This record gives sequence, structure tokens and C-alpha cells, in this order.
Amino acid sequence: MARNLKLTLTYDGHDFAGWQVQPDRATIQGTLVSAIEQLTGEKTLPQGSGRTDAGVHALAQTATVMIQSPIPSANLGRALNDVLPESIRVLAVQEVPPEFHARRSAVAKTYQYRIYRGEICSPFLARYVYHHPYPLDEGLMLAAAAIVEGEHDFTSFAAVDPERRQGDMEMNNVRTIYHSEWRRQGEELHYTVRGSGFLHHMVRNLVGTFLLVGKGSMTGGNLTRVLQARNRSAAAATAPASGLFLVSVEY
Amino acid sequence: MARNLKLTLTYDGHDFAGWQVQPDRATIQGTLVSAIEQLTGEKTLPQGSGRTDAGVHALAQTATVMIQSPIPSANLGRALNDVLPESIRVLAVQEVPPEFHARRSAVAKTYQYRIYRGEICSPFLARYVYHHPYPLDEGLMLAAAAIVEGEHDFTSFAAVDPERRQGDMEMNNVRTIYHSEWRRQGEELHYTVRGSGFLHHMVRNLVGTFLLVGKGSMTGGNLTRVLQARNRSAAAATAPASGLFLVSVEY
Repeated sequence: MARNLKLTLTYDGHDFAGWQVQPDRATIQGTLVSAIEQLTGEKTLPQGSGRTDAGVHALAQTATVMIQSPIPSANLGRALNDVLPESIRVLAVQEVPPEFHARRSAVAKTYQYRIYRGEICSPFLARYVYHHPYPLDEGLMLAAAAIVEGEHDFTSFAAVDPERRQGDMEMNNVRTIYHSEWRRQGEELHYTVRGSGFLHHMVRNLVGTFLLVGKGSMTGGNLTRVLQARNRSAAAATAPASGLFLVSVEY
Repeated sequence: MARNLKLTLTYDGHDFAGWQVQPDRATIQGTLVSAIEQLTGEKTLPQGSGRTDAGVHALAQTATVMIQSPIPSANLGRALNDVLPESIRVLAVQEVPPEFHARRSAVAKTYQYRIYRGEICSPFLARYVYHHPYPLDEGLMLAAAAIVEGEHDFTSFAAVDPERRQGDMEMNNVRTIYHSEWRRQGEELHYTVRGSGFLHHMVRNLVGTFLLVGKGSMTGGNLTRVLQARNRSAAAATAPASGLFLVSVEY
């Protein structure tokens, strides 16, 4: 009797080509597939709450997977941690109803983006931040962050996603941002955003745009117009992956 | 006119085969040599305060190097950081007298060894600790640390060093430990040791021995006898490199 298991995962994305399985590349999903097969002999395909890109980290990503093996959930978590590389850890394994799906059942997600503002970035931090020691008006960035709160069509902040098909239920680019805030933490500047869902590259494109505001190249009014333009070419460059963390997924 | 420059460096040793230059392997010294040559055209060989092993980190390693280029020290530091990988940072560049030597002029060094005691080790910490979630009597380890303080012949804790020649001035294995202490920091257990100098693998061999004490496999009395034995085979296994940091070098 197959059980539907919800895995809560944390990973250092630096050395992975993202979440999604790819031939001949180390990915989070592919590494999980191998670990589960090694332990249970079963060929599975854990479904994540969403795909994280190459270099993006997770404090608590979730995935669901159907498992035939009768191994108790807690033991499976420990056994997975024994075979997974130390860059991926299983924080929890929980049996969930068959209809529960890591992506489709999610109601909200929180991401954090970390910028290091000091002149010299410690090598122990460099993998986990975007090092940007240049002048920024952080007050303007804070004010701009509030502009994207609420329900909006975020097409201007979405990468063209080669995996999406015409007619896909998710072609709709309207998302609700519940909370969007920049905050100073010592030498770091953290952007935290909680929303109903996020389009491909959306957080990194928002951060790239807030950086333009911080540099004085864009005003809050411009940002409102970019949002209304519903056109990817209107927004700024995508901020580097190293600073981005998937913090949590809510169900 | 060549200047003698003292570099203060921090590095994440995880992806390096240690300090010392080796053919076809990424090392800290070799990476510095390339960066200096790229900037100045000069072939140099920066001398470290000591060689750190593969996987060992540094918060503040020092090195001295003779440079012909008239580039100001502060500019050289910034320029080196522009060409070095982000896993090595130059914290300071300082002109020093010609007779100053990073290793021979050093009067004391401090190392720290970090053990993570929690059940699941975060992937963001795993490169920088030794994960040891098993029972340890930390009180016994604290007491044992004090035993090695003072002047002792540390032959029992020295690896056989293939680079040392018979008759070498440094064949003497007597060193003075000024301070040796274990301390809890949340889920981490930190060993900090400051001494006049350290033999090859000495800190990791001390930690391996303190771990035996913590597990109840060795008493403080045994530790005293191991120290007196002046025989490497008397001590415990070398603790893993990932937990070790060179904290500072004093002159």
C-alpha cells in the first residue's frame, strides 16, 4: 500500500544545477531520487513545492513522494540523511493524505534575499549572499518594497518559462503578495517576501528592480509603471541566485 | 626596490588541497601566486605562518611576500580581492621590515575547532564543523583540555611530517600551550587553543584525544601518560579537517 509522504528539506544550492532533475547534472530532485532508490529500491519522482534555480538555497523546501516501502517515516528521514550529501538535509518526513501535493496544495510561500553590504565579504558567507558593497538608498528600497504588496499581474517580473505550455492552467500571472519588506541585519540587507505564489525568477527580478531604486536609477512611480506594463522587458536584470533562500511553504 | 609585504588572509579551505602549492591541485598558496602574477607580472612564493591542511579554514592566516611592484598596499589588497576566488579574501596588506617572516617571526597562534552536537547539521554549517551528534561528557573534555596547558613535548600529537629533514632546527617538539579550553556555543562545542606553535596535525590530534575522553574511552590520567609517551601511536585518531580554523597569528 503506497503512502504519500511529505518531505521537508533544507539545501545549500551552490553546487547544484537547481531543483529539477537533469541528465548528467547534479540537482536536488535527482539526488533525492537516487537516495530513495538506494534505500527502498523504488523509482520515484518527488514533486517539489516549486523548482528552485541553480544556486538558490532552501531553509525549508517541501516535496511529496509516493513510497511503497513500509519503513517508518522517522526512520526514512534518518536513513535519507545517511545517504544524501551533507549539502541536502531532510528535516522531517510526514505521512499525508493521497490528494496532498507539495505544489498544488501550497497556499503561501516565503522567500528571503540576502545582500552583503560590507566592503570585504567573508568566504564563509560568500556562497549565501549577493555581495553589493556599493551605495544604495536603503530607505527608498524599503518604500518601494511596499508597492508590490497586494494582488497584481506580475508578468513584468516573470522570466519566460520554457516548460509552460499554452493553455496551462497557470498561464495566469496574477499573484498576491501578503508581505514585502527590506530590513537591515548588521552588514546584511534582507528582503523578505511572502505571497500566494511566485513566477519563475520573480523574486530575483523584484530584487533587481529594488536595486535600481536603491541606486537612484528608478523611482517608486517608475516601479508602479513597470508593474502595470505586464511586459518582462520593462523590469531590471535578475539578481544573482546566491542570495536567494526559499524560507518556508505553507499549506 | 622590493618591499616585504604582510598579507592577512581568510579562506574557506573546503575546496582547497591545503595551503602549500602542489602541481595540478587548487591550493591557497598556489592561488595567491597566480593572483599576484596576474596583477604584477612577478613570480613570487608567499610564505605562510604555517601550512594548513586540506579542508582547514582560516579566519586570519598571515603570509609574507617580496613584491617589486610600486602598487600601494591598500590598492594591492583590493586588486587581489578582484582576481582571487571568493573563497579567499585579503583582509589587509601591510609593509613590514625585510627581516619580518610570517612563520619565523610568529610568537603565538590561536586555533579553534568546532563540533556540531545537534542531530541534523544544517547544510550551511556542514562545511565548517565536525558533525558529532553522539553522547559526550563535555565536563570531562573541559577538564582534559587543561592538562595540555604549559610546556610539553608534543611528539605524541604530531603527525610524521614528510617535509621535515633530520637535523632541522625545528625537530624539537617542545611547544607551550598558553590556553586550552572547550566551550559550548548553542548547539556547537568549540575548542580554542593558543600556543607558541603547533606541530603538524597537532590540534586535530588533540581534539581526537579529547573526544576519546568525552566518550569515556580515556581518562585524564591516560591523557597525561599519552603526553609523556612522546610516541604518536599513543594518541587517538586525527579529527576531521572541516572543523578546524586558524584564528590568528601573533607577532
